[in-house]
Formats: sequence, structure tokens, C-alpha cells
Amino acid sequence: MTTLVFGHKSPDTDSTGSPIVWAWYLNEVKGIPAKPVLLGEPNTEALFMLDKWNLDKPEILTALEADTKVVIVDTNNPAELPANINEADITGIIDHHRLVAGLETRGPIEINIQPLACTATIMFKMIGKDWAQAPRGVKAAALSCILSDTLEFRSPTTTQEDRAIAEDIARDLGVDISEYAAEMFAAKSDVSSFSEAELLRMDSKEFDLDGTNLRVSVLETTSPAPLLERKDALMAEMPKVAEADGAAQVLLFIVDILKEEATLLVPNDMVKHIAEQSFGAEVSGDTVVLPGVMSRKKQIIPNLKM
Amino acid sequence: MTTLVFGHKSPDTDSTGSPIVWAWYLNEVKGIPAKPVLLGEPNTEALFMLDKWNLDKPEILTALEADTKVVIVDTNNPAELPANINEADITGIIDHHRLVAGLETRGPIEINIQPLACTATIMFKMIGKDWAQAPRGVKAAALSCILSDTLEFRSPTTTQEDRAIAEDIARDLGVDISEYAAEMFAAKSDVSSFSEAELLRMDSKEFDLDGTNLRVSVLETTSPAPLLERKDALMAEMPKVAEADGAAQVLLFIVDILKEEATLLVPNDMVKHIAEQSFGAEVSGDTVVLPGVMSRKKQIIPNLKM
Repeated sequence: MTTLVFGHKSPDTDSTGSPIVWAWYLNEVKGIPAKPVLLGEPNTEALFMLDKWNLDKPEILTALEADTKVVIVDTNNPAELPANINEADITGIIDHHRLVAGLETRGPIEINIQPLACTATIMFKMIGKDWAQAPRGVKAAALSCILSDTLEFRSPTTTQEDRAIAEDIARDLGVDISEYAAEMFAAKSDVSSFSEAELLRMDSKEFDLDGTNLRVSVLETTSPAPLLERKDALMAEMPKVAEADGAAQVLLFIVDILKEEATLLVPNDMVKHIAEQSFGAEVSGDTVVLPGVMSRKKQIIPNLKM
Repeated sequence: MTTLVFGHKSPDTDSTGSPIVWAWYLNEVKGIPAKPVLLGEPNTEALFMLDKWNLDKPEILTALEADTKVVIVDTNNPAELPANINEADITGIIDHHRLVAGLETRGPIEINIQPLACTATIMFKMIGKDWAQAPRGVKAAALSCILSDTLEFRSPTTTQEDRAIAEDIARDLGVDISEYAAEMFAAKSDVSSFSEAELLRMDSKEFDLDGTNLRVSVLETTSPAPLLERKDALMAEMPKVAEADGAAQVLLFIVDILKEEATLLVPNDMVKHIAEQSFGAEVSGDTVVLPGVMSRKKQIIPNLKM
């Protein structure tokens, strides 16, 4: 039976690239038949990575059959996985997010969660000396994941290990990190083809704030202007997305990767209040700039207050 | 703030020794103030280990204060931990059991779960070259954990890694494994001072079998005779323990470490039926011998059927 390796829904670069890395390792090093799959259409940065390195786009999983062997990467949150995930035979979990209650395994399996910026960094460490035999595309996928999740080492989630491993892989591949990251971020910033609803759900996590269910959405970009030009349309769409997804409110943070700041859209008094309480911001209009804020995990979620 | 390191309730040797190993590592190698604690009185084998190696008996934790930093070892099951465990600040989990839904962490932390026989084996691997500087008592605690959990390599949970690491530590300490394991198992087998209710709860895990809550208890011993002499009293106590603990039935397996077999007590038709369905046993009296059965995790739980 083939083991399916997948990350979270709304796949970003890490949830697209890490399954490719791990499926290679299972197939070629461990001799376990495996294939990477996706839980949805990857974002534009992930598509750029696949194209750039001639990697096959993994199949999109439409239904998960019970008892399928799976390895879950880049999440351990059932809300970001197929609804019947606990009917699968989970054989491994590799992740870098906080543990949330939900997944169950049939027996003891290998679970490796580490407070690093990127799943691929953990995989690199787990693969050890066998990494040398990885093909260029696999190595490039891992590099892409680390550059994406660390925003080229700008995010405060970045650790020495993430950086050292990315630099090591880049050297091995002969890739100029700054040039390649700029290409990746340009691809991620090209969101002209997406509707407002798609943008609000593109990189979004649910968060319960004292009983209020929030959808905390982040758009990382090197060119915030085209997004900010659409702010009225984005704010008009928020109540519809919130209602459809069972949330009280969508918070949209537009992260400017180069200026290292986030702009939060402020459609109403609730968000204004959250911005003031959480970030000590003074809000006058319908946007507020939060200097230095780049990471949902490290800077946004831990500070959210009502 | 001191980090508390603890294993599961009803501490066995692994849940007593592994916290000692990890607290040493945090204190002396990582520079993080830490101390091992227990969630109850350790069993007679664990007490023997402490006495034999002049290790201080860890304090028994009576209440877990909210926000305390904790590292959880040898379990990830909230049912085996303080009721308010998710109010603590969990900073690490090291375990070798199946993942069950329940624990939540505040941020991404290091979680290392591996399908090995013993928590101490995983710690030995995590500690790496710093292991050399561990004091004799810490090394002996790890050796004791591995010999206990593998029943001196007889249990089918034993992996090559568990065995190789235990042999490595024994060589380093100049300990004869067979002699030492015999002393440990003799200590574990001395259960004369315990009441029937205490024996039924001594090494017991809850298991939901198709909606029926069972208490699956195991007593590992080198001298089953004194236990089997008490079988009528043990069976008489089962309904009381089951009722008090909200279980439909207690299953008691007396594991003969040396003969490598288990004797299941059969107090009623329900257990008779379970024994026949689960192990293909032919049951005539109030006990049934199950040849080769030594591991709840590998051989009992996965086979239980109604």
C-alpha cells in the first residue's frame, strides 16, 4: 500500500514541498512506497517552485479512504486536514506548530515536532547523511520551504538551524538565496487572479479568542499596493466569508516582506478594538500599520486580545 | 521557574527513572532549572532502583499549579496526567505510546514520540554525546527503565536500539544485565503488601472496546504463584474497582516474565468471551494461560475483541 504524504489544506510552499521531500525519502531511502499529495490547489509561490525545478505537481486528494497509510507534515491540526483523518492509519507526523488536541494514532509511531521555522528543516535533520543522495529537485524543494516560511530569514520564527541548513542547501545547489527568494516572493505577490474571498482564505487559520472564533488571515507580499487598492472590496467580503466559515470576524494582515511590517484592515469597531488591545496601535482610519509584525505564530496569535 | 518533569500516574520504573534522566539533562547540560516529580507512589521495582543507586526519591506532586512549566514523559494521555494538565505550560513531550487526542501546547515545542520500547532509550538518543557526562545514578536509571520496559529484552516491544543502548550503558557501568534484571524483577514481584484493589490498579490502562470501557491491568512477575493464590480475592474485588473507576470490567493479566506467558483471570462470561474472541483461547476454568503474551501494547490491546 502506498503511503500518502500531505500537509495542510490551502497548501503553501512548505505544505507542497515538504511532502515531496519526505515521499522521496520514504521511497528511495527507506524503501517504503510513498507519494506526495495536496489537500487543495497550491498557492502561486508553491506553483512557481514546482515549475522552476521541474517537479511534478502532486495530485490533489479529493477523498481519503479509511485505513490509508498517511504521513502528516506541517500541521497536526484536524481542522486543517480531511474530516475523516482519524480513520486513516497515521504512520508519522512531522510538524513545527503547537500541539492541538485531535489526532489519534493506532499504535506508537514516530512524531517529530520541533520549534523551528519550517517542516523541511526538521526533515533535513531527520534524513541526516542520506540527504546527500537527494536529487536537485528535492533539495530545491526543501530550500524553497525554508525561504518561504522564514521570509528569507526575516521572520522572527527563524532559528539558526533554519538559516544554516538553507544556506548549506543553497551552496550545494549553487543558488543565490537573495535572487531566488525575490523570484519566489514575486510569485507569491502575484495575486491578481484571485477573488477577494479566495484572498481572505488563502493563508488563514481559525483561532478562538475567549470564545470568539476568528479567522486570522495573512497575505505575505513584496508589493502590498495592489492588495491595499482592493481594501474596500476585501472588507466588503469579510462578513460573507466569516458567516460561511462560522467565524465572528476575519482579520486580514497584509505583511510587507521587504518593509517588515503588517497592515491590518479595520472594517469595524470590533477589529479596531482588537488592534488597540493587542498591538497598542492607535487606529484612525480603516487600516493600521504594525511595524515589525511578520509572523502570525510568534507575533499575532500570542498577542490577540479583545 | 523550575520545570517539573514527570511521567504517568501509578509510576513504574520508566515513569520514575526517565524524569530523573531528563531533569539531569535540563539542569546540567541545557542550564534549565528542572526537577523530577512523581504523580503517585512508585511501584516496588522503581523503589528498588532508587534505593540501589542512591537516587533521591522524587517528590510526589499533589497539585499542579496553572502556568507551571512541565515536560511530560512516558505518556501523552491526559487520563494519566493531572486533570488540569492543559493549564500548565507544556514545554516538551517525550514518549513511546500511541498519540491520543487531548494535550495542547501554548506554542510550538519539541515533541519526540518514537515506536521504541522505552522513554529512556529516546532520551539517550536525544542527549547524544552529552550522555558521557551523566553521573552513574542517571545512567543506571536509564538502564533500569529499559530493562523494565523490555522485560530484559523478552517483550516483543523491544527494538534493536533499546537493546543496543541498554547493553552499552551496562558495559559502561560494569553492570551484569541478567543479575541486575533478576534483582529488579524480584523487587517488582514482591507485591505481598498490596491490597487486591491496589494490585488491580497498579499497572492499568483504560481502553474503550467498541464503546465498552475496560480497565486492562497487567502484573509482570517472576513468581506468579502468590498472585494466583489470591485469584478469588482479586476476582471478588474486580466489580468494585470497575464501578469506582467507571469501567465495565477489569481484565487482569498476570505476566510470567521468565516463562513468557500471561495468565488471564476469568471471573465471568464476558471475560471468557473476550478471551476466546481475542486470543483464540479455550477457556474452561477461571484462568486461562496465553502463551507468549507479554505486552499490553503489542499483544493485548491490539487483539481485544468482544
